[in-house]
Amino acid sequence: MEEIFTNERLAVFAKKIFLAIGCSEKDAQTAADSLLSADLRGVDSHGVARLKGYVRLWEMKRVNTEPDIRIIHETPSTAVVDGGAGLGLVVAPFAMQVAIDKAKTVGSGWVSVQNSNHFGIAGHHAMMALEHDMIGIAMTNASALVAPTFSKDKMLGTNPIAVAIPAGKEQPFVADFATTTAANGKMEILQRKKQPVPRGWVQTKNGEESVNAHELKDGGSLLPLGGTREGSSHKGYMLGSIVDIFSGVLSGANYGPWVPPFPAYLPMPVQMPGKGIGHFFGAMRIDAFRPAADFKNDMDNWIDAFKNAAPVDPAQKVIIPGEPETAIEKERRANGIPLLNSVVMDLEELGVKFGVNL
Amino acid sequence: MEEIFTNERLAVFAKKIFLAIGCSEKDAQTAADSLLSADLRGVDSHGVARLKGYVRLWEMKRVNTEPDIRIIHETPSTAVVDGGAGLGLVVAPFAMQVAIDKAKTVGSGWVSVQNSNHFGIAGHHAMMALEHDMIGIAMTNASALVAPTFSKDKMLGTNPIAVAIPAGKEQPFVADFATTTAANGKMEILQRKKQPVPRGWVQTKNGEESVNAHELKDGGSLLPLGGTREGSSHKGYMLGSIVDIFSGVLSGANYGPWVPPFPAYLPMPVQMPGKGIGHFFGAMRIDAFRPAADFKNDMDNWIDAFKNAAPVDPAQKVIIPGEPETAIEKERRANGIPLLNSVVMDLEELGVKFGVNL
Repeated sequence: MEEIFTNERLAVFAKKIFLAIGCSEKDAQTAADSLLSADLRGVDSHGVARLKGYVRLWEMKRVNTEPDIRIIHETPSTAVVDGGAGLGLVVAPFAMQVAIDKAKTVGSGWVSVQNSNHFGIAGHHAMMALEHDMIGIAMTNASALVAPTFSKDKMLGTNPIAVAIPAGKEQPFVADFATTTAANGKMEILQRKKQPVPRGWVQTKNGEESVNAHELKDGGSLLPLGGTREGSSHKGYMLGSIVDIFSGVLSGANYGPWVPPFPAYLPMPVQMPGKGIGHFFGAMRIDAFRPAADFKNDMDNWIDAFKNAAPVDPAQKVIIPGEPETAIEKERRANGIPLLNSVVMDLEELGVKFGVNL
Repeated sequence: MEEIFTNERLAVFAKKIFLAIGCSEKDAQTAADSLLSADLRGVDSHGVARLKGYVRLWEMKRVNTEPDIRIIHETPSTAVVDGGAGLGLVVAPFAMQVAIDKAKTVGSGWVSVQNSNHFGIAGHHAMMALEHDMIGIAMTNASALVAPTFSKDKMLGTNPIAVAIPAGKEQPFVADFATTTAANGKMEILQRKKQPVPRGWVQTKNGEESVNAHELKDGGSLLPLGGTREGSSHKGYMLGSIVDIFSGVLSGANYGPWVPPFPAYLPMPVQMPGKGIGHFFGAMRIDAFRPAADFKNDMDNWIDAFKNAAPVDPAQKVIIPGEPETAIEKERRANGIPLLNSVVMDLEELGVKFGVNL
């Protein structure tokens, strides 16, 4: 059911596909790196499995592969970037670099992005800050799949937040999570296993509780982190809303129910108030607060304390955010990336279409 | 069981108590304003009900009422503030003002605070940004009551996050929430009603599921937002950790299990790695991103769309973050603040001790 590919082979293939749809050499490389970071870190739902989806967006003319990505407004510590309707995989690293450059100059940089598209995994962009001894932050809005507390309407995307924080001897702390109880990837696993989903993941189109893993196809919606009213789903709704406003309203992108969908077969929202989808990035130089070495010592101490907190089950220690992904990346760089046969078939189909060998 | 007081009467009383324990005129006013903002907004657990607790901290010499609050490191967009072991109620507005001043100059300001104490409600400080057409952010760490996913040890505080965002004709968006499923205030309500708490709020000292509203007194812990493993409590754990690191590690304050407790009868942690408790504040000027009028138009549109999302129950519409608190504040400014008799007795006791009439 699976086939193993090296990271290099998939990266070269993805790059050639991006070149084939009109990306520049540099953009194709950036997009391929963004995409492969997901496969390497074990976020299989956001890696090469999505390559076909990006190509479809280009075929539908919803993505411009020769975008004019530029700063349209700025102050010493802030900017708005217009992504030129480009691939989010390319727009996001551009904008994150603007945030990093500003942080170098004035201590921190904050960039809101309009007129972009799906940017892959948030963590990859946030992690760009690490090599500069900066904290990196990345978030994005997305098309509406999530009902706010008390509603049956889909008003928010899964709106992820990523925060990457450098450490010393320890691996960096990298949190990267959707602001829903569970995102689509986890639903799909239970669909394949023909199992119900836990309470608090989804509701029916009428707003009733559901454990049906296929509820979204029946018009239902995902639920904000917290899941139920007594589980404090209003907090997940607030978090998702903050991501939406920082990414969409602050930049002049679309927001709420008007964010364009990733699947190209879905119609675009009507009466869209902004341009494309929105992202938000931040970079804070550690030594704009205290000496980086002191901070890293304390981060090592923090990580050590949490790793050694008494486990409920001795077989399962406390996990430091990013730790599993770092381990998967190490393993996959050494032993390759397993792809489901259905994904391999999609890639082969793309290869045939564009005359590129997988 | 309740008595009604005007905001003015309670504010004057609180100010006189703060003066009696050595605060300057200005600090006593600031502290009273911070405290009363909680009572006005309906967060009764964080208002004058806590006045006795602050006095106890002063009696135990854990709070300095004549603090030297100062910036110890800064760049154009960032600063670390040393709170001089002062009342967080006073330190927080100082630090938030630093963030606002920096935002005026370079677009945004970000301030991490060490050597502080409990700062009241996060939302009050975040909202300082609103009158400047800025987005305000406030967070704080707190003494450990929360077990990370997979652990039975208390490693994090309830670590709240507040984000205040200006709107146009609509009331501002003000999110203010603990990163746990539920904070102590909600537990206490169910304790008084002799009711169990919902699943996912607490666990026993051995890490077993519990619905006992008194579980904390038996050595149990609060659970991160998400509550259970399948409810994605790891996301709440990540959020609480980010607040802890931004507030504690970035500033040189204490963090994780070493954050000093609010109740003065509890012993201080041993081998504390930093100074006092930590906060983190941010201010972003709206027009550092786009014209404030355009942003506010879109915020009004956002709020309008969410208010009018189809409700599951026609009797309960979607709530905009901050909407209930704004309504309570309006009502309480007009009709007064109800205090439980037990709180009134505490205040009268304080009044007798310091020769101040309630």
